[in-house]
Amino acid sequence: MSSSRDRALAYLQAHREAFLQRLAAFVAIPSISTKPEHQADVRRAAEWLAAYLKDLGAETAIFTEGVHPLVYGHLPADVADAPTVLLYGHYDVQPADPIAAWDQPDPFRLEVRGDYAYGRGTADMKAQVMALLAAVEAVRHAGQPVHFKFLFEGEEEIGSPGAVRVLQAHREAFQADFCLNPDAGMQGPDLPTITYALRGLAYFELRVFGPSRDLHSGAYGGAIHNPAQALAELLAGMHDAEGRVTLPGFYDAVRPLTPEERARLAQVPFDEEAFLASAGAPALWGEPEYTVLERVTARPTLEINGLYSGFIEEGSKTIIPAYAMAKLSSRLVPDQTPEGVARSLRTYLETHAPPTIRWSLEQMASAPPVMVEVDTPEVQALARALASTWGREPIYTRNGGTIPIVAMLKEHLGMTSVLTGFALPDSGMHGPNERQHLPTWYRGMEALVHYFYELGEGAA
Amino acid sequence: MSSSRDRALAYLQAHREAFLQRLAAFVAIPSISTKPEHQADVRRAAEWLAAYLKDLGAETAIFTEGVHPLVYGHLPADVADAPTVLLYGHYDVQPADPIAAWDQPDPFRLEVRGDYAYGRGTADMKAQVMALLAAVEAVRHAGQPVHFKFLFEGEEEIGSPGAVRVLQAHREAFQADFCLNPDAGMQGPDLPTITYALRGLAYFELRVFGPSRDLHSGAYGGAIHNPAQALAELLAGMHDAEGRVTLPGFYDAVRPLTPEERARLAQVPFDEEAFLASAGAPALWGEPEYTVLERVTARPTLEINGLYSGFIEEGSKTIIPAYAMAKLSSRLVPDQTPEGVARSLRTYLETHAPPTIRWSLEQMASAPPVMVEVDTPEVQALARALASTWGREPIYTRNGGTIPIVAMLKEHLGMTSVLTGFALPDSGMHGPNERQHLPTWYRGMEALVHYFYELGEGAA
Repeated sequence: MSSSRDRALAYLQAHREAFLQRLAAFVAIPSISTKPEHQADVRRAAEWLAAYLKDLGAETAIFTEGVHPLVYGHLPADVADAPTVLLYGHYDVQPADPIAAWDQPDPFRLEVRGDYAYGRGTADMKAQVMALLAAVEAVRHAGQPVHFKFLFEGEEEIGSPGAVRVLQAHREAFQADFCLNPDAGMQGPDLPTITYALRGLAYFELRVFGPSRDLHSGAYGGAIHNPAQALAELLAGMHDAEGRVTLPGFYDAVRPLTPEERARLAQVPFDEEAFLASAGAPALWGEPEYTVLERVTARPTLEINGLYSGFIEEGSKTIIPAYAMAKLSSRLVPDQTPEGVARSLRTYLETHAPPTIRWSLEQMASAPPVMVEVDTPEVQALARALASTWGREPIYTRNGGTIPIVAMLKEHLGMTSVLTGFALPDSGMHGPNERQHLPTWYRGMEALVHYFYELGEGAA
Repeated sequence: MSSSRDRALAYLQAHREAFLQRLAAFVAIPSISTKPEHQADVRRAAEWLAAYLKDLGAETAIFTEGVHPLVYGHLPADVADAPTVLLYGHYDVQPADPIAAWDQPDPFRLEVRGDYAYGRGTADMKAQVMALLAAVEAVRHAGQPVHFKFLFEGEEEIGSPGAVRVLQAHREAFQADFCLNPDAGMQGPDLPTITYALRGLAYFELRVFGPSRDLHSGAYGGAIHNPAQALAELLAGMHDAEGRVTLPGFYDAVRPLTPEERARLAQVPFDEEAFLASAGAPALWGEPEYTVLERVTARPTLEINGLYSGFIEEGSKTIIPAYAMAKLSSRLVPDQTPEGVARSLRTYLETHAPPTIRWSLEQMASAPPVMVEVDTPEVQALARALASTWGREPIYTRNGGTIPIVAMLKEHLGMTSVLTGFALPDSGMHGPNERQHLPTWYRGMEALVHYFYELGEGAA
């Protein structure tokens, strides 16, 4: 007679096509949380997930204290004295524009080409959510060794501004021994990965105002400061020639990398050439005193995410624009705070903005950076599960991305998160042709099944 | 029995409402030459003008050697030995966006509020064209003292790229003693103005390319040069802190302002405070060693007309954009050339663009700067006509705008232009709420009637 674990793994194997179909249905809902006109789609994705959980036998609820719905679920184990794991996912996605840059007509219609499933929100992170649910379904079928709780939010891509209100209003519901968060990705198809640090985020919209309306550049050019030029001057001054951020006090709170940690990161297999090739840029860039992996995971940044002024259509228009706008965001590392970076930026602008323009700064999404312990039973159980599936020990690394809920769970519920994931570095997150590597996805499901049984055995 | 001149002036007075109605019909055609999707509208405006000329009794033709149609007309005087004046106008207009910035729902539906007629293309320059045609209609009614030829182009706002081909193909048709060009505006409602210099134009689109697609800023931020930042750095370096252009060799060909000319310009009534108020900017700006009037008419500039990169909609998106774009244009003064400025810009980019990005530079519209003599019979006749209407001598000034046809007529037909106009400095050309001051418009028509009879008498 086969073990529960074997039966669950066999179940996964037998239902791959069904899981892929379900992923396609999930991706088909354009749950773009950053665009107000997609609010109904975000809601629809939440309801779709709640119905899915109900089909699995879970008690569910949709909490609406936040900006977008948050899906809660609870699915007790077959035995009472099992550990409780909170399974986290976000069902919202980034915008798909520019759609013309995709190799498929509709980014929300899943397309399988070769080993990949393409579509907005596959890697980030609908495929990860579906991997969780596939593994849950498999262990439900074969014998469930742990209590499951679910927290599926629809605000991750806007910085989870309302999640705190939900957590505070439903503190008891979300109680669990820890949170499993598969939104941190992995370093390569053969490199199972456990992430121990995330960067934070502070997002801003900076506007520079010049004349009260667009002016004729022949009539006014030479005597009125062009706000697009003033914005360019302000932005250019925010970095030095080697890529360091020049905002006053920006690095003050950065915890220095210890020689020990640098040595550990140096052992993470990281191919700088492959990284550059996946970016498609002419050359690497950034702080010369840090490795590329350190730059993208352990160092803070300041990026221009968008830029607008004046006339940008085909053709020509000879104006001095009335205003210019930049979307700016900073990735933070411990012990920086979004508030501290906002202060640095504001101080810089107050010091450098010329009297010939006016400016405004709006702070949008924000999230503090995170570091988690790895010498815990739940992380070591995950390491065993990943090793069982991939036949090698996982690597431990930092991740340059941001998952605001991780810091919130720690701060408001005292709960730690275990960070992993099955999205590869070249999965095109946030850009066109986002994709999930399917062999890695199927392995990820298997690893999760192993993990749940490892956790159950650890408790027994 | 009243003179022809009196009868023509009475005719103008009696038909003001009809002229305004006709202006409304002209403005209603959105003849936006800079936008390919308005090509049919541009054509429609040409046909509308040709039909108007035919109604006045003119022989007409629409020449199509250029990018947009050019309307030709010929209307001989009652007597053979009269001078021939080529009446110039452009019937194309700037785009109306951002339409939300207008105080009226439709910029192409003329609205009269107070002393002004509002609409895209009123001041620049459909009202000027209609003033010419009203004056022609009046003298046709009362006795026509000069031969009229007409040149109405549809390419002025894109830099008249095809007009040269028309002039070369129809050299004989356009022969005239000189060209009257009312596209140069006036300094104030009580300041009839003759313009003796125009700035030239060189328009560019600069693109900076970084990664091959938009990248996730968490995954790549810190190790890939953000092209929006690289663009900002390049743009910021194009001016010094006091507003001088830093492109190599940019000022080399600039003819220095003589003390005599500076003295003459200093006598032009120019209210710097009113100028600033009309711009609605917080402060004046620009080369400190020149007066504001000199900066906007006699000094070359480099302006950012448009700026785009990445995500610019509402909300947030955390990407490193794949590319960034700037529309740039330079206003030139004698003896600069568009080619020379393009060389300066290219040299600057070759010197300063970092190896972490790629760039491309496309040269779009261009026109050389112009200076015209004022001690000529045709200019002095205009001075008398303006004085008859306004009761004061006109002022002589330079204009910061660009009218490419002026240099072309000189170069290809050896023809000088007389530059005047009835658009006021605060008419909102190229921006929202463009308007024509109606009392000035009616006075302009009268001045043109005086002018035609002054020219006829000068010849008699």
